[in-house]
Amino acid sequence: MIGGEKVQRRGLLIILSSPSGAGKSTLARRLRDWDPSIRFSVSATTRAARPGETDGADYRFVSEPDFKQMVSAGQMLEHAHVFGNFYGSPRAPVEEAINGGCDVLFDIDWQGAQQIQTSALKGHVLSIFLLPPSITELQRRLESRGQDTDETIRRRMQKSWDEISHWDAYDYVLINDDLDATEARLKTIVTAERLRASQQPGVIDHVRALQSEFEGQK
Amino acid sequence: MIGGEKVQRRGLLIILSSPSGAGKSTLARRLRDWDPSIRFSVSATTRAARPGETDGADYRFVSEPDFKQMVSAGQMLEHAHVFGNFYGSPRAPVEEAINGGCDVLFDIDWQGAQQIQTSALKGHVLSIFLLPPSITELQRRLESRGQDTDETIRRRMQKSWDEISHWDAYDYVLINDDLDATEARLKTIVTAERLRASQQPGVIDHVRALQSEFEGQK
Repeated sequence: MIGGEKVQRRGLLIILSSPSGAGKSTLARRLRDWDPSIRFSVSATTRAARPGETDGADYRFVSEPDFKQMVSAGQMLEHAHVFGNFYGSPRAPVEEAINGGCDVLFDIDWQGAQQIQTSALKGHVLSIFLLPPSITELQRRLESRGQDTDETIRRRMQKSWDEISHWDAYDYVLINDDLDATEARLKTIVTAERLRASQQPGVIDHVRALQSEFEGQK
Repeated sequence: MIGGEKVQRRGLLIILSSPSGAGKSTLARRLRDWDPSIRFSVSATTRAARPGETDGADYRFVSEPDFKQMVSAGQMLEHAHVFGNFYGSPRAPVEEAINGGCDVLFDIDWQGAQQIQTSALKGHVLSIFLLPPSITELQRRLESRGQDTDETIRRRMQKSWDEISHWDAYDYVLINDDLDATEARLKTIVTAERLRASQQPGVIDHVRALQSEFEGQK
């Protein structure tokens, strides 16, 4: 177990899933404010941009043929079809980030989470599910956006329940009844995961130094 | 995935291993001061009590025939033979504690850790290895006890190296170069592990409540 080349830490793939309106985007931003080295995986999508959304920041907006071309070329880590639109996580920026030792945060649904959790990168995945305090609160937050029709909200609530029902396929689960407390727990989870033996290849160098010291004293 | 009886949380088996003199006992005490619900697994041993050691608190001192009888009756979670003496973790107090929802802390060596990590309880194990900052520091701490001969110290240093060389079979690894920082990291790890979906069976009740609410609104 001791020997071999010096190894660079590989970043974690941090998956944050929740029904829409459970505080996921706010918490993702807070996590990056806390540690700016964390990269966001910007999803590609075929849906139209909403008012205020920026291409390349919120989403990478692509045509359906381009999206399908990316999938068939193996350029997507995961992809899903939701409400008639495609969503996917482009592979290249993720691999570049984790190979450089940076963690990558994914704001994706359970279908995407499942694909990443069964991919070749599964050994580097940390998945967290956020539950809302109540359905009433979830609905209130969806309605307060003021962008959607009743039918859209009803459909989103159904999708939310579908999402919630997959909570137990995640490593960690947090009930987001207090944003600050949930933020603290998220940081605790990320901090702990970085202390895993598998996440600290630099420890090998420390053990080698101990070995040299030990052998020098015999 | 939703349904079934209300489930009580099962405690974690927290294994803390390190070479002798790396700060393990101090950190174990601090962890219990922080959360008094954490139980210590008191090892049974056939070695003689040292000055100041209390039967039932530091160790459970037993005869070799009694020890062997316990092993053959399946009453030990793990056991090992070190420097001519037997050491083992009695199973009954551990099962009682974890079934009651309490975490149990094990101060055991890599052989014991390996046995617990491959036992029927492996799904509830959290294993942490403490590395010393240097061999010199380790030797200094062993010598400062003032209880041992040079030969004993030499033998313990060899055992220490043997222990260190198994660091990468643990979930987490901490270099204990600062006791307070290591204590903080230990607490972070335990706090995070308790947020695992598998460690929060109570979340099932919350999800059931969400489901009722969702169905009532349709």
